[in-house]
Formats: sequence, C-alpha cells, structure tokens
Amino acid sequence: MRSLVLSLAVFLFFPLMALAQPAAGPADPAAQKWALAIHGGAGTIPKNLPEEQKQQYLKSLSRALEIGRDVLKGGGTSLDAVEKVVRFLEDDPLFNAGKGAVYTHEGTHELDAAIMDGRDLSCGSVAGLKTVRHPISLARLVKEKSPHVFMVGEGAEAFATEMKVERVKNTWFDTPVRRRQLQEALDEERKTRQGKKDKDTVGAVALDVHGNLAAATSTGGLTNKRFGRLGDVPVIGAGTYANNRTAALSATGIGEEFIKHTVAHDISALVEYGGLTLQQAADRVIHEKLKAGDGGVIGVGRDGAIVLVFNSEGMYRGAVDSGGRFEVKIWE
Amino acid sequence: MRSLVLSLAVFLFFPLMALAQPAAGPADPAAQKWALAIHGGAGTIPKNLPEEQKQQYLKSLSRALEIGRDVLKGGGTSLDAVEKVVRFLEDDPLFNAGKGAVYTHEGTHELDAAIMDGRDLSCGSVAGLKTVRHPISLARLVKEKSPHVFMVGEGAEAFATEMKVERVKNTWFDTPVRRRQLQEALDEERKTRQGKKDKDTVGAVALDVHGNLAAATSTGGLTNKRFGRLGDVPVIGAGTYANNRTAALSATGIGEEFIKHTVAHDISALVEYGGLTLQQAADRVIHEKLKAGDGGVIGVGRDGAIVLVFNSEGMYRGAVDSGGRFEVKIWE
Repeated sequence: MRSLVLSLAVFLFFPLMALAQPAAGPADPAAQKWALAIHGGAGTIPKNLPEEQKQQYLKSLSRALEIGRDVLKGGGTSLDAVEKVVRFLEDDPLFNAGKGAVYTHEGTHELDAAIMDGRDLSCGSVAGLKTVRHPISLARLVKEKSPHVFMVGEGAEAFATEMKVERVKNTWFDTPVRRRQLQEALDEERKTRQGKKDKDTVGAVALDVHGNLAAATSTGGLTNKRFGRLGDVPVIGAGTYANNRTAALSATGIGEEFIKHTVAHDISALVEYGGLTLQQAADRVIHEKLKAGDGGVIGVGRDGAIVLVFNSEGMYRGAVDSGGRFEVKIWE
Repeated sequence: MRSLVLSLAVFLFFPLMALAQPAAGPADPAAQKWALAIHGGAGTIPKNLPEEQKQQYLKSLSRALEIGRDVLKGGGTSLDAVEKVVRFLEDDPLFNAGKGAVYTHEGTHELDAAIMDGRDLSCGSVAGLKTVRHPISLARLVKEKSPHVFMVGEGAEAFATEMKVERVKNTWFDTPVRRRQLQEALDEERKTRQGKKDKDTVGAVALDVHGNLAAATSTGGLTNKRFGRLGDVPVIGAGTYANNRTAALSATGIGEEFIKHTVAHDISALVEYGGLTLQQAADRVIHEKLKAGDGGVIGVGRDGAIVLVFNSEGMYRGAVDSGGRFEVKIWE
C-alpha cells in the first residue's frame, strides 16, 4: 500500500509540476517577467550638452521605452517589441539610424540593420540600403520571407521592392545636423588625414512573457565613411545577437573593433560556457577586451537581467521591466 | 654553501630555460611546429565520381598543401601561407572560388573572401566582388591598408582600383561546368520552387613556426543565388576566425546556418571558455548544433592539432604538418 501511494505520488508529481509552470503559449502576462533595454549610440557625448537637447534625447528614449513596454506588457513578442522600438528610433532625426542617418564621404546615406530571434537563432541582416525608410523591418523580412539571412546593396533594394516596404528618396535622410558633421569630418580629414568619425547606432533587446529573447540594431554607419564599408551592425555575433540560452545583445561603437572581437557572441559564450553572469561577461568584453572609447553594449538575460555597459564617455540608453524599473540615461 | 648553490641554480634555471625555448622572432624553423589544413568545399560529392576527376581534385589539393608547406617550413608566416594557398585554389576552376566561381541567378559572378590574423585579431572581409581575380588578396589589403575591416560591392571594387590589384572582366569567371550547374538549378527551381544549391568554398588555416595562427576563406557563393546575398565567408566569427588563444578556423557549407550558429567563433569559445579540445569543440558544433548536410569546418589549434570535421557526404580537404603528416581526402 505504501509503495502504491509512493508510486502514485511520483506519477502525479511531474504532470502537476508541469501544470504549475506557466504555459509556453498564451501566458498570463501579469504573472511573467519581461524586460527591455535600448540604446541610441555611444561615444563622446559632451557633458555640457545644452539642457534642451538633453531633454529631447531623454524624452525620445522614454517614448521608445513606453512603446516597447506596451508591447511586452500586453503579452506581445520580444521580436515585435524590438522591431517597433527601433522603427520609432529610426524615425527620430536625433539618432544615427533611419531619418537621422549620417552622410557617407560621397554625401549620400547608406543604412544597415539586423534582427535576431533567440528562440531559434533565425536572423536577418541588411546593409548598404539607400531608399528603405525602416531598415529594421526589411531585416525582419529577410529573416522571415527569404531563404537568405544577409542581403546587401542593390540586391537588398530589389528585395525591398519585392516586399513592398516603404521607400523614400536618399535625400529624404538629409538633415542639417548630419550635413554639418560631414563638413566637419571632411575639414578635419584635410588637416589631420584622420578625422573624427561619428559612430552612433540604435538598438533594442527584450525578453517577453513567453521567455523569448530578441535583439535589433539599426544604423546610418559612420560619418564620412567610404561607400561600401560595413560595420558590426549587420554582422550577426558582432553587433547583434540573441540566444534564448543566454541573452539578447545589441552593440554600438567602432564597428571594426566589435567585428574583430565578435563582441555580442563573445558575451553570450562567456555566459554559456564560462559560467559568468551577463553583467560579468559584458564587463569583461567591453572593459577588458575592447579599448576605452570603443563603445558599449546593451543586453537582457534569459532571467530578465538588464546590462548597459560602455567604455565611452556616454551612451544614450534606457531600461524598463516588469519589476517596475523605468530609466533613461546618457552618462553614468 | 648548499643554499648558495641552490640560489644560483634557481637564479640560472629560468634564464636558461628561456634560452632553451625557441625565440619568438627569427625562430629556427626546423625546431618548431607548424601545421596547415585546407578545404575545397563540402557537400554532396557522389562517391562514384569518375576516377579521373577524383585524381584531379586530389592532385590540386596536394599542390595546395605543398605551396603552404613550403612557406611554413621556410619560417614564413601563417598569414602568408593561407593567402598563398587560397590564391592557388582561387585560380583552379575545380573549386567555387575565383576562376571557378558559380553563377548568380542573373548569370554573373559575385565573390566573397575573408582573412584573419590570430595574433591581434586583425581581419579583412570583402563581398560582392565582380572583377577582382584574387578576392583573398583584396581581403588582406582591407585588413592592412584600410581603416575598415569589411567592404562590399562597388565600394570594395573602388578600393581594389585604389590598391591596384589584378582585375578581370566578370565573364573571365565563366566556366562551362558552372554554367551547366546554373541551368540545372534554374530547371529544378521551376519544377520544385526550391532548387539544389551548390555551396562550395575554399579555405586554409595555419600555424607558423612563430606560434601564430591565421585563417583564410574564399568563395563564389551559391549557384543561382539572388544578387546581394552574402553567406558566412565574409562574416568574421561565422565562416572565418583566428585567435592565437584558441585556433584558426575556416568553414564551408550552407552559409545561412553558419551565420546563425556563429560557427567559427563558437568553436573557439568552446575551447577557450568551455575547456574542450579543438576536436571536441568542432564535433560539438558541426554534429550537434548544425543539421546533417550543412557542411564542415577545418581548424588548426595553437598546439598544431588539426581538425577536419563535416556532416555532409564529403569534404575536399588536406592536412600537412611538421610532424610528417601529408594527406588529402574527399570522403571519410
């Protein structure tokens, strides 16, 4: 009799435990953790930034967080959240992505973006776009509607035509601020043969109530870059990476360094194989492997932990989660 | 007195040991380990391949090994060895790289390549080239003569002009065999809407007598690919990676899968953080993370260990090292 009870207990324990776990499908949003982190670029951001400008940045970052929060709180997917947040940032001329894209050396605009789903590692990258208003949405279409994962230049533009996404003239990306930055870069290049390069990017990473991670990054590249140059944004594992076993990550900074150091995948690997926490892993890569001034990374772990790490003077960033956190920052 | 002798012994031991170690600079080539592995693509290679054709492949692979061996044996760098070997394979129409590049859907050729130096992680990638005879050498010039690490399309072509590398007409890459493969792919696509895709690549990885690792990969991409599609070859960390702390790696197979799984960097990370041997790490990624038929990878570890792992029917490959190994193979 005792053994029968024991058998019955064992027999019932696992199914009951399974029932006690939240279902993978239509979860109760209120019961589940979600988290979102965003960035709007890292670099030399003067601390004496005029108050009005500072408030504009903080307001835009807050609005981006609200947009993502509404998706995640309502039980939406992390993939939808990061795409929607990045679309919003792409439309804001404050940031170097979409409408605010910097100028190439030739005075045009070339945009790159990537998105990745941590559930199955499916991903899409686009680069060298000239007429696509929302590069991040084309990246998602590459991921979902094409047999490829990485499309560049005219081929990517042809795919955009096939997908009927919104198109604009390349001059639509013109803004006086970025035009001035190109002029400054060209002037400095003539003097120093080097020239300061603006290197901002926007990105979002999220965990949804279903336990899935996703990452999205979008950029207008480097001011005064030679056409045809790609940075880390569309390089899966460098500027963008998501894996449900570890974290979702989006980087911003000197793309060349982030490619060399395979930054996003290296952080993920330090968590998965090295046993580090996401914070320790991000600190190790950003502060020990990269050089000061190279840039930063945002990440959300599978447990909802948020990291915002940078070795530059500042990073436009924000974080919001189901625990009530809601913050936007530029410097420490 | 005894303690004096002991002190003296300790005092002398380390400097003498240091002298006994081969110097880092101009090493005695004969005293030092070197190793080289190459591949010419992985995929469905029929075992009933006509004997004559089989011999052609084995002969070409052997010649490539000899070229790399001569560089490494003479004290040359791993970087020079892998570039020289890949240049040779690019000129051989048997392989899908350089002269033997497959056709895009549009009936043209687009070539990609990447090279990486394990000493400092410096790297160069080029993609979508149409007129560069030796993509691998342009990748090396991106690494060494440009502030960027990744250049695509017309921008990369403009850089090729600046660097004065050898140019050819796009039709120079035409070969009857690849033309027939395109026709077959188009016919099959009409029937099945899918179409078999040839997906070969060439690659070389090496350890030199100075203890430095390097990797190089070059490809004509996929038969019948839509223009603008990039595979894993130019994606540092996916198809190409070298790091003196771990290994030099070059992959071949379905590029999309190798990008999703960040194959080359994942193998390196499993060695560095996971404590696996290079063989265990390569087996784990190729046999457990990828699907059967996806492709393979070659690698040389910092200790000179060579791995040649694939989950497809065959992989054109070869290995040579300072221990006297010299072998070329297609199937097991």
